[in-house]
Amino acid sequence: MWGGRFKSATSPELKELNASIHIDKRMYKEDIVGSQAYAKSLEQIHLLTKVECAEICKGLEQVKLEWDNGKFVIKDDEDIHSANERRLKEIIGNAAHKLHVGRSRNDQVTTDMKLWLKKAIAEIENKLKTFINVMVNRARLDIDVLFPGYTHLQRAQPVRWSHWLLSHAWNFKSDTDKLQQVLKSTNVMPLGSGALAGNPFEIDRFTLAKNLGFDSMTPNSMQAVGDRDYIVEFLFWASLVGVHLTRLAEDLIIYSSKEFGFVKIHDSFSTGSSLMPQKRNPDSLELARGLGSGIFGQCCSFMMTLSSLPSTYNKDLQSDKELMFGAYDKLMGILEVVIGTVESVQINESRCVEALTFDMLATDLAYYLVRKSVPFREAHHIAGQVVAAAENRSVEMCDLTLEELKAISIHFDSDVARVWNYENSVEQYQSFGGTAKNSVLGQIHLLDAWLATSNEIPQ
Amino acid sequence: MWGGRFKSATSPELKELNASIHIDKRMYKEDIVGSQAYAKSLEQIHLLTKVECAEICKGLEQVKLEWDNGKFVIKDDEDIHSANERRLKEIIGNAAHKLHVGRSRNDQVTTDMKLWLKKAIAEIENKLKTFINVMVNRARLDIDVLFPGYTHLQRAQPVRWSHWLLSHAWNFKSDTDKLQQVLKSTNVMPLGSGALAGNPFEIDRFTLAKNLGFDSMTPNSMQAVGDRDYIVEFLFWASLVGVHLTRLAEDLIIYSSKEFGFVKIHDSFSTGSSLMPQKRNPDSLELARGLGSGIFGQCCSFMMTLSSLPSTYNKDLQSDKELMFGAYDKLMGILEVVIGTVESVQINESRCVEALTFDMLATDLAYYLVRKSVPFREAHHIAGQVVAAAENRSVEMCDLTLEELKAISIHFDSDVARVWNYENSVEQYQSFGGTAKNSVLGQIHLLDAWLATSNEIPQ
Amino acid sequence: MWGGRFKSATSPELKELNASIHIDKRMYKEDIVGSQAYAKSLEQIHLLTKVECAEICKGLEQVKLEWDNGKFVIKDDEDIHSANERRLKEIIGNAAHKLHVGRSRNDQVTTDMKLWLKKAIAEIENKLKTFINVMVNRARLDIDVLFPGYTHLQRAQPVRWSHWLLSHAWNFKSDTDKLQQVLKSTNVMPLGSGALAGNPFEIDRFTLAKNLGFDSMTPNSMQAVGDRDYIVEFLFWASLVGVHLTRLAEDLIIYSSKEFGFVKIHDSFSTGSSLMPQKRNPDSLELARGLGSGIFGQCCSFMMTLSSLPSTYNKDLQSDKELMFGAYDKLMGILEVVIGTVESVQINESRCVEALTFDMLATDLAYYLVRKSVPFREAHHIAGQVVAAAENRSVEMCDLTLEELKAISIHFDSDVARVWNYENSVEQYQSFGGTAKNSVLGQIHLLDAWLATSNEIPQ
Amino acid sequence: MWGGRFKSATSPELKELNASIHIDKRMYKEDIVGSQAYAKSLEQIHLLTKVECAEICKGLEQVKLEWDNGKFVIKDDEDIHSANERRLKEIIGNAAHKLHVGRSRNDQVTTDMKLWLKKAIAEIENKLKTFINVMVNRARLDIDVLFPGYTHLQRAQPVRWSHWLLSHAWNFKSDTDKLQQVLKSTNVMPLGSGALAGNPFEIDRFTLAKNLGFDSMTPNSMQAVGDRDYIVEFLFWASLVGVHLTRLAEDLIIYSSKEFGFVKIHDSFSTGSSLMPQKRNPDSLELARGLGSGIFGQCCSFMMTLSSLPSTYNKDLQSDKELMFGAYDKLMGILEVVIGTVESVQINESRCVEALTFDMLATDLAYYLVRKSVPFREAHHIAGQVVAAAENRSVEMCDLTLEELKAISIHFDSDVARVWNYENSVEQYQSFGGTAKNSVLGQIHLLDAWLATSNEIPQ
Repeated sequence: MWGGRFKSATSPELKELNASIHIDKRMYKEDIVGSQAYAKSLEQIHLLTKVECAEICKGLEQVKLEWDNGKFVIKDDEDIHSANERRLKEIIGNAAHKLHVGRSRNDQVTTDMKLWLKKAIAEIENKLKTFINVMVNRARLDIDVLFPGYTHLQRAQPVRWSHWLLSHAWNFKSDTDKLQQVLKSTNVMPLGSGALAGNPFEIDRFTLAKNLGFDSMTPNSMQAVGDRDYIVEFLFWASLVGVHLTRLAEDLIIYSSKEFGFVKIHDSFSTGSSLMPQKRNPDSLELARGLGSGIFGQCCSFMMTLSSLPSTYNKDLQSDKELMFGAYDKLMGILEVVIGTVESVQINESRCVEALTFDMLATDLAYYLVRKSVPFREAHHIAGQVVAAAENRSVEMCDLTLEELKAISIHFDSDVARVWNYENSVEQYQSFGGTAKNSVLGQIHLLDAWLATSNEIPQ
Repeated sequence: MWGGRFKSATSPELKELNASIHIDKRMYKEDIVGSQAYAKSLEQIHLLTKVECAEICKGLEQVKLEWDNGKFVIKDDEDIHSANERRLKEIIGNAAHKLHVGRSRNDQVTTDMKLWLKKAIAEIENKLKTFINVMVNRARLDIDVLFPGYTHLQRAQPVRWSHWLLSHAWNFKSDTDKLQQVLKSTNVMPLGSGALAGNPFEIDRFTLAKNLGFDSMTPNSMQAVGDRDYIVEFLFWASLVGVHLTRLAEDLIIYSSKEFGFVKIHDSFSTGSSLMPQKRNPDSLELARGLGSGIFGQCCSFMMTLSSLPSTYNKDLQSDKELMFGAYDKLMGILEVVIGTVESVQINESRCVEALTFDMLATDLAYYLVRKSVPFREAHHIAGQVVAAAENRSVEMCDLTLEELKAISIHFDSDVARVWNYENSVEQYQSFGGTAKNSVLGQIHLLDAWLATSNEIPQ
Repeated sequence: MWGGRFKSATSPELKELNASIHIDKRMYKEDIVGSQAYAKSLEQIHLLTKVECAEICKGLEQVKLEWDNGKFVIKDDEDIHSANERRLKEIIGNAAHKLHVGRSRNDQVTTDMKLWLKKAIAEIENKLKTFINVMVNRARLDIDVLFPGYTHLQRAQPVRWSHWLLSHAWNFKSDTDKLQQVLKSTNVMPLGSGALAGNPFEIDRFTLAKNLGFDSMTPNSMQAVGDRDYIVEFLFWASLVGVHLTRLAEDLIIYSSKEFGFVKIHDSFSTGSSLMPQKRNPDSLELARGLGSGIFGQCCSFMMTLSSLPSTYNKDLQSDKELMFGAYDKLMGILEVVIGTVESVQINESRCVEALTFDMLATDLAYYLVRKSVPFREAHHIAGQVVAAAENRSVEMCDLTLEELKAISIHFDSDVARVWNYENSVEQYQSFGGTAKNSVLGQIHLLDAWLATSNEIPQ
Repeated sequence: MWGGRFKSATSPELKELNASIHIDKRMYKEDIVGSQAYAKSLEQIHLLTKVECAEICKGLEQVKLEWDNGKFVIKDDEDIHSANERRLKEIIGNAAHKLHVGRSRNDQVTTDMKLWLKKAIAEIENKLKTFINVMVNRARLDIDVLFPGYTHLQRAQPVRWSHWLLSHAWNFKSDTDKLQQVLKSTNVMPLGSGALAGNPFEIDRFTLAKNLGFDSMTPNSMQAVGDRDYIVEFLFWASLVGVHLTRLAEDLIIYSSKEFGFVKIHDSFSTGSSLMPQKRNPDSLELARGLGSGIFGQCCSFMMTLSSLPSTYNKDLQSDKELMFGAYDKLMGILEVVIGTVESVQINESRCVEALTFDMLATDLAYYLVRKSVPFREAHHIAGQVVAAAENRSVEMCDLTLEELKAISIHFDSDVARVWNYENSVEQYQSFGGTAKNSVLGQIHLLDAWLATSNEIPQ
């Protein structure tokens, strides 16, 4: 393909490292679609006759069929571009040799990748929406379950289980929204940039972009052939989803420990031990946490490669495809497993309730005082002393007598008893975003609406 | 502030590691603005009287003034929140103790950070636009300079200097556009989320958000207090700008070597050597390249911290502020220096022209054959043989006789002489995004228009 | 210092980014010691007279004193090297100008850094040994406490508390050993490499190295001035210690949750909440976990800077010092806090015992069968059925009747009752590295011996 | 293998994500060797009879043969451990079920990995030594070639080509030395740690370690099963080699540009362009630079996974094998290509000499003055003025008349002419590590000796 001026053959070592066919063959469809569209553009400017163009398009259709059916035989092909062109030549003869005019693998490969990534983005988006839907349904179903909300992994205040679950759902909702930004970077056609200087035959890039389903065209050919921002943006985006998955997994792994016991991971998403017969391990979540955290490594890898790279195309960029496919596969694999895990997780309601303790209402005790006009900072201090008093006497706060309370602050009165109610506590948080039932139902409503329309929801 | 229930004082070691005042004092203004708005919300729901609210707002104004004038004395303060509240108490007395009701440092700190980051984003945006403007002006000024375009750091095809420069400008234009996505994540008010459960006094978060200039409110209090996506998004965004800066710096460092000699970095952006008297080093660009590549470390740092973190607030998040400030400072510092360097760089036009060699027109020779109906792949091979022939005879390609050319391919004719013209070569690339003069002027026009309106430009 | 050939002054922007004095002044002592030794070498080869050398050494002593006493006034100094030389000139006059001959800041700065790092390594080593000693003492003290060992955060088998604690101590012991490798990379003197070509005055580098306390000399001047491997090795080493700290912190944070309740973090290493009066949060451990995970970002930052850097010195390397100091400070800060936390942590023995459940002896039940000649894989399956049977009947495994057991396998007999004993279970693990008391005492002995001798212990 | 207590089958999604057989089958030999040694240990303590042990060992030999010959049929196997055990059972029947007693996949997998990595380390070590040998031979061959040494990519001082090449060789020599530290971490046998508590049958771990060729044993079973330090240490080590490769590649890519032209990459390590017939690109080096920088991503990935992981085994660790194999494959692939590239690179001596310019002797001019007793700092300044004067008059420094020089400093005399000699300049650097011929030959000698003995060389 490029050997005209070369005297020696490529060394076997370089050939092996250089060949990308076993990775980039995954984009065979996009490569063919791109070539068919490019052929039509060449016909438009009379570099191909109508007949040649038809031959090429038909021939490429056959090549695609061979790939589809697993009949395509990879020979001594460097990459998917040369493989498809080589095979086209075998099928239709010399006209195949006219296809590459004005085009370089530099603009071809990034066009293929963008076409592939656009489809991948749509698939991931659907998967994320499926996941959010599962979470919303579980939130609706389990809305009456109260359990401890934690900060610093210490019991903080009672919250609704569904509020906790939705706190994760909102992360994935944000991720889904942010995918639009990745799509935007991807949806710009580089084809027509040639090796670096542009296209010299006044090809109609606008029509070409339209035919390939791109929103717009790259505005500078040198920028276009060396640009892989859309790849690192995708990798970072996937890493952030990965991080969100690790945080959900971490919560659930802890909640499914014997000690917390709030949930039981379903058998079909657990595994056992080759040594310890009693074991039921939350492997699905641990794999999600491990892989989720690891996706970022792929982002690091490519950022390092891009850093300090001379502009335009350099062969260093070769790893872009492996990383793109790798991140996609990892993310989809984890999502599959986590969706099933969340869908089937069993809540142990009695353990949830038992875990609520009266010291978690200490803030409510302070608010009780605030409502009696004690400045909050002072009320906080008094409530702290009540906590300490209960601890010292090894009793629950609600078991302190009114006298004992009054000894700490004269503001306590018999109505303090009303504080000791978890449901009431939760129901205070009526403000937008709070854990009261109405507020949580409101969140469910917002997410339902968003899932239904896929449009931005008003917040 | 929280010691009511504690028996022992905090150990000096923990105190030192825990204290963030020397870092987060940088957000004193945002902390005060946030508290003033919160006070008004408390007045709205009658947790503060009109008078108390006015006292608080006025007192805070004085605190701000003390910071502004460098008069604020940090005492035994853990962080900016407690410092400001402590000082307010000293100024206005007990009313200060009513301010924190229903609010937690968990929702306060992330509100402060978002307020600070919103301003920082605006400043960086301006700086980037200044930079792009400088590049556009240089592109306009130097539009007639041709020089070698490189791929793989090997001479590829002649291009306009301005086309090369704009290839970098477009990266920064994209970055500026993507800043909107970071802003979007930042522009969501977390205040009113309390520690994790929400606000129990039916505070009007909608008005509060409006007063603080936020676009919308966080929809889930548990998500809100543990969410630092906007920070990692900012850090990654800054890293990507950093990578773009390293690629520009790499090009310019190479171009300013004696061997390339296309540019001379101005004395005021160079430094010398303590040992070698003749040295003039492109330190500005090397610092940009070194710091630009290093910003990503801050993104890595925080991604690792977030990964597998239990949901809601955990103290691990403490490093968020240092990383946010650090990335901002680094980026602004580099931009300052690179703007000045690009503005003042001198192009050595004669070196640029001398570096153009006829082998860079080999593609044009192939196109010449294509125009004579030779299929491109064949034309490419013939041109490769011409390159080899010239190399073997140690002559320039244009010095091969017609007979010598005809010996390689019968398609060559005397009109082949017209191929050997760099200006003509460049002017072929009239398609959108190409290196022809019209196309480059078109890019300048698009960027000018975008700078003028700050709206999305049609591509 | 280098301006002889320059026409314009350095721009203020570059000056600010370029200046490192506010960071590298931390190495003032090392810079001075290095210069004193270099002066002696110059005297040896008669580039300084005895008198000049004495003047320089004495003058530098005074400069050091000024730094020590906080009297040194930084003026328009670029870095610590020029600051010290400038001040020396002010004190002793012209002889100061003879000091830099044959030396470049390129070999000077990396010599200073290595001198500094050698001391830092010794300090960290001591801190780590203090930490290990604390752990060993706690292990000795608490050796009789049994509690659940976890895999996958699910109860696995009973183990000694001390065995768990030592599992972390061994990590830090390994880290301490590996520090020797970092020291080895650091302990190679670069001085005498000049800017890149070496030293042209046949300076005696061997004596110079001996005087400065280095083990050996860099063997290639071009390698020496651009080499920062010792920095990334230190940063990675610190990151790995960081990771070990996060794993210890993660365990302790979980164990100190109300639900696990195995430990109580001392008040002096906990903090409270500005909102929730009852809170006692394990902030010391969360800070350790957050900062520990974040150290790696500094390693990433510098690896990215080094990657693809042209050989010898480039200004990109400038960030080396900030990262070196930063990692050291972070690590020492965390260690201080974690040492105190582990030293003072209270074990709740009754909670530990209560958490042991009979299903954790399922492996022992299988071993019981193995001892009756049932192949292990079959025994494992039978024990699994016993677990399931107990779960189905909602009883403990030990409450199943012999008949019920025999229904599952005929190999069960009345001696099965002896299986249900946690102490016995633990005491089975007598092999080297196991959790039996002897084995744990053996570990304590090994660590004690290692701490005493600081030599490699036999394993 | 672990299903005794489970009610539902593993979900297909989890099954797919959980299965590691297609990756870990690469360790089939190590898994078998480990099992054979373990069987012998079981015989020693009478948990296997002599006959059973012999059956198992012979059966495993046959399993290995099936793998060797590509006859092994993977069925519904989760991983290499269960695959081998399953097949063993098919071959020898029930005795196979006795093999796993006291052993867990937790200690088995990390033992397999260590056995594999030990061999991989030896292979990489050999490859690195081959590479260093190639560099040493080139250094010997090309020792008389002078060319510009660069700092900041600006011409600094003349150096020997071989000095430059060896500056890279020393990096790889250091890497080879540091591999011993990775080996040390790897060479510690975890087998006998069981799931986490140790081995309950008083197995003789000392003999087991000896039989498997390990240096020592892990001292704590809980530490052993969750420890993957040796993996991250290997990944970081490989990353650092990667960085060294990028720095060599960066130099050579720049030196092989038309503008520098110091070297020509051999055709067999270059590739061409599908569009531009004249192109000969240094793809081998660009791939090395791209992949070399990317290896670090794998280190990042696993560091993130380890960070904050609870102690002992968690399924998150699953990705360890893919990363270990991946880093090994990448590194070996790059080394193959770079060895061939360096071996065959052609030096263009005339371009090297032409690139030497008299301003590179400015330091020598200053040294000339120093030898006339001008203090260096003053001499440096004078030489800088000479540089400026030559530049102003557009002449070479050596073409300034003595009068012109005297006008700058009275210390100049007619003997200044002797300064303008590149060979003399280079030969000044006789000190250890300098660029004089003797010194470079000394380096060659040291490396030769090291390669011959593989022992530490005196520096």
